[in-house]
Amino acid sequence: MKTCIKPLLAALAITLSAGAMAQQAPKPEQQIKWRQSAYQVLAWNTGRIKANVEGQYNKDEVIKAANAIAALANAGIGTLYGPGTETGKGWHDTTVKPELFTDGKKVGEVAGNFNKEANELAKIAATGDVAAVKAQYTKLTQTCKACHDDFRKKD
Amino acid sequence: MKTCIKPLLAALAITLSAGAMAQQAPKPEQQIKWRQSAYQVLAWNTGRIKANVEGQYNKDEVIKAANAIAALANAGIGTLYGPGTETGKGWHDTTVKPELFTDGKKVGEVAGNFNKEANELAKIAATGDVAAVKAQYTKLTQTCKACHDDFRKKD
Repeated sequence: MKTCIKPLLAALAITLSAGAMAQQAPKPEQQIKWRQSAYQVLAWNTGRIKANVEGQYNKDEVIKAANAIAALANAGIGTLYGPGTETGKGWHDTTVKPELFTDGKKVGEVAGNFNKEANELAKIAATGDVAAVKAQYTKLTQTCKACHDDFRKKD
Repeated sequence: MKTCIKPLLAALAITLSAGAMAQQAPKPEQQIKWRQSAYQVLAWNTGRIKANVEGQYNKDEVIKAANAIAALANAGIGTLYGPGTETGKGWHDTTVKPELFTDGKKVGEVAGNFNKEANELAKIAATGDVAAVKAQYTKLTQTCKACHDDFRKKD
């Protein structure tokens, strides 16, 4: 289902988002609302995995959550950072830092890492190996934090 | 990747959500925010597919979007309709009708249909058959509408 090329493609999707958006780009406010929604869905599903590895483990629930995270990682959230979305309001004012729109190399790197670890988590979740899921979950959340540190304003 | 049993499991997940949520359920407002976010992510991705079948077709983008929709359909959005979420505010006041919490049979039916057509769309998207994708996209959106008609208040 997953291939090694996907993280690279995801990184490229972000780098190329400006070009890809040229055709009928949704309004900036809509893009911001959708990306804020996508991160909430990621939070929902990472939270479920956390609850499972720290409490009673339900293999099926973890698989569902990990698959949702991987599919969103592969979906190209980067395309929702189109021109005009540097500032503005979706559900709330965007917390993105200006650097996300200028440091393409670093963005590609952190996005690629997130994508890689998310897809790896989906693979490991399918095995039901709780310790491995827990370790991979930690790796994934580190990639979330790395991106937040670099590209999300403090609350 | 997908099995015929999944639609049934998804329907069951909704019916059983009250029980499954007993262990450390997120706060009602959080559940409402997450489900509203999930529907926004579905709107983002169905919108992408619509744009592709009506305009220039990009097979890779449609696959990404269809996989995201299927993964969310499989994720168990129904678990975000736990006790206490009949009314309340996530990003905005919930628009759910009371019937969603009382008509389990109908809910299972519409949720099962959505799940089935979403997974089917992901399969068809992988083939790159534009006409088939377009037909299946229509089938999927009919299941969205059916649920909205029965369980979402008018704006």
